[in-house]
Amino acid sequence: MNIPGIITLTTDFGLADTYVGTMKGVILSINPQCTIVDITHQIASQDIMGGCFALSASYSFFPEGTIHVAVVDPGVGSTRRPILIETEKYFFIGPDNGIFSFVLTGQEVKNVFEITDTSCFLPSPSSTFHGRDIFSPAAAHLSKGIPPARFGNPIKDYIILRFPEPVLVNKNEAEGEIIHIDRFGNLITNLTREFIEKLIGTGDFCAEIKGETIQRLLQAYAHAEEDEVFCLFGSSGLLEVSVKNRSASDMIDARKGDKIRIKR
Amino acid sequence: MNIPGIITLTTDFGLADTYVGTMKGVILSINPQCTIVDITHQIASQDIMGGCFALSASYSFFPEGTIHVAVVDPGVGSTRRPILIETEKYFFIGPDNGIFSFVLTGQEVKNVFEITDTSCFLPSPSSTFHGRDIFSPAAAHLSKGIPPARFGNPIKDYIILRFPEPVLVNKNEAEGEIIHIDRFGNLITNLTREFIEKLIGTGDFCAEIKGETIQRLLQAYAHAEEDEVFCLFGSSGLLEVSVKNRSASDMIDARKGDKIRIKR
Amino acid sequence: MNIPGIITLTTDFGLADTYVGTMKGVILSINPQCTIVDITHQIASQDIMGGCFALSASYSFFPEGTIHVAVVDPGVGSTRRPILIETEKYFFIGPDNGIFSFVLTGQEVKNVFEITDTSCFLPSPSSTFHGRDIFSPAAAHLSKGIPPARFGNPIKDYIILRFPEPVLVNKNEAEGEIIHIDRFGNLITNLTREFIEKLIGTGDFCAEIKGETIQRLLQAYAHAEEDEVFCLFGSSGLLEVSVKNRSASDMIDARKGDKIRIKR
Repeated sequence: MNIPGIITLTTDFGLADTYVGTMKGVILSINPQCTIVDITHQIASQDIMGGCFALSASYSFFPEGTIHVAVVDPGVGSTRRPILIETEKYFFIGPDNGIFSFVLTGQEVKNVFEITDTSCFLPSPSSTFHGRDIFSPAAAHLSKGIPPARFGNPIKDYIILRFPEPVLVNKNEAEGEIIHIDRFGNLITNLTREFIEKLIGTGDFCAEIKGETIQRLLQAYAHAEEDEVFCLFGSSGLLEVSVKNRSASDMIDARKGDKIRIKR
Repeated sequence: MNIPGIITLTTDFGLADTYVGTMKGVILSINPQCTIVDITHQIASQDIMGGCFALSASYSFFPEGTIHVAVVDPGVGSTRRPILIETEKYFFIGPDNGIFSFVLTGQEVKNVFEITDTSCFLPSPSSTFHGRDIFSPAAAHLSKGIPPARFGNPIKDYIILRFPEPVLVNKNEAEGEIIHIDRFGNLITNLTREFIEKLIGTGDFCAEIKGETIQRLLQAYAHAEEDEVFCLFGSSGLLEVSVKNRSASDMIDARKGDKIRIKR
Repeated sequence: MNIPGIITLTTDFGLADTYVGTMKGVILSINPQCTIVDITHQIASQDIMGGCFALSASYSFFPEGTIHVAVVDPGVGSTRRPILIETEKYFFIGPDNGIFSFVLTGQEVKNVFEITDTSCFLPSPSSTFHGRDIFSPAAAHLSKGIPPARFGNPIKDYIILRFPEPVLVNKNEAEGEIIHIDRFGNLITNLTREFIEKLIGTGDFCAEIKGETIQRLLQAYAHAEEDEVFCLFGSSGLLEVSVKNRSASDMIDARKGDKIRIKR
């Protein structure tokens, strides 16, 4: 796999502190030619599932050989392992805490290595900031062409977390939940287009959430009426609940984890 | 026009979601040599005028040949057209909804093309995220030297929105309004230096806003007294109402759209 | 000193306005090959000490020859001077208002120049936005290899601010204070590892803050119990007060400037 020298960063560090800037300094100190791209640094603090979702929505839009670093890391300094994942098209570096669960189940995994070669760490790594001391330098060394197998031994017992999956209540009804609310207040569920299309078939669409009944499944935000609560398949292929030019989250007072029922 | 491979992004996507990172992945997949610069992603949701103002304050500071992508796009998925604007010095790509109004009236426009060549889109573009599926790939292809005319046919009936303009109440008095409030709480008005200088001539300056009378028009924030509400011409050449080391917005409880009267 | 063409930015401009994007446009107009890295733009408005702390926590992780631009600049447009600092490994550009105090005392300073050569400014610099009109263009010219001495005359009377330092109350007790609260709610103090280790020696550690007594000084966040308020040395080598997976700041209602006592 060709490595174009692109490293992405997904963290819960926010942008107010200097953690992200410092990681970039470390990367550029090892490989000044790197292109570094922020996916997001506003994963909720310690929200591994949020990091998982962010990565899965974005990683596949990057060039082959991109190195995706993800750091949502409540276990930093404990025995949780740093890992390097090699898939058919990408590399992933971060803590072995489940943050790569969607990534590992969504594509062909070639190898997972425990990162143990201290020569690719900063000297005297801290026990509080592996984003700076281990993950960034490892990504930078990898971007220079160090072979993945040099970072440590392959492992098989890496962590895959189970996230809420839609359940079939009966053959006409399914239940999913909100897994993300975006800046516009769109409620993004764990219901994929395939799942919904299989459930509904040629029948009518009907969704229930927070006491609201939604019967319109639209193609675009712009097709909705003013103040109408409607559904559509968003840009990640997941069912969303939306209100045109307003926040669905505010309008129906919905939060992450709230359930949605789909009937046909 | 030489194209240096610089693409800027101005959106209302925020930085908490992965929308912006994903756009960058798409651009780098087509042109890995691109330099991508964020202007801002914190335009208020669907605020086309806010996007207009942000672009107009910043675009001309970039190198000739820069490609400015702007996505504030309430009509995504409807019949609104994607457009590519070629001016004397720059390119602009985004929805034909008026977001380029200031840009189109502020410089010599050579061509406006409707983007219709689907070979410069991502395959199967969604009807919800043209920033990812149409505007980013079009910008990336343009940055590689594809001639603008290859993207589609020239159009003349592109949208120019009319924004609030200062009005002369009588020959000694004019009314403008606040069009932006910045991070420091400075109130930025639609009154240009030229307009004010022409109105005032050699007379005294006097402004009224929210019951406050302001008689000092200063050169720099540092020249003000503590807690003094004063005016100056900000870095965009527009009249601002400010308070030194404090938020004028908080201090006089002013918001976007509030009127300001200038008398001589 | 080799100059790799890396410019970092640390400001209080936030990311909602176009100030930062505009600075990047100015830099790329002069040196399109530059790599620009954001350290942070969310220093509290006009908080020179906050800028100082951010720089000191991050600058040394960048490659030798990096140019660090810092703009927290309440005195813009007054007589405060623009300066260029040359240390053994780095360059620093910004206002002479004390923002480089930690940087100047933490490493060997070779030269400090007052920037007076207007040929490295934008034409007709404003009196409100030197980040755009003076500091960015100076950094871009420096990144192209213009010798530092060409920017102006050396000065010796640059400003060094005194920041709160820990005090020894008696030989068994010291008092420090919170100088920064990070995104996770960790309370970062001005107490260095060296200071604490010298005070405590082989004795027991005990800290008091906001009525809380803390007797555990841990190696890693993950070693703490749920809801335990504990101390550790954070990634900058400073003593932090933390709560695992929660905000210490919220939990004990602590703010910047609050005192902490250390006893042995």
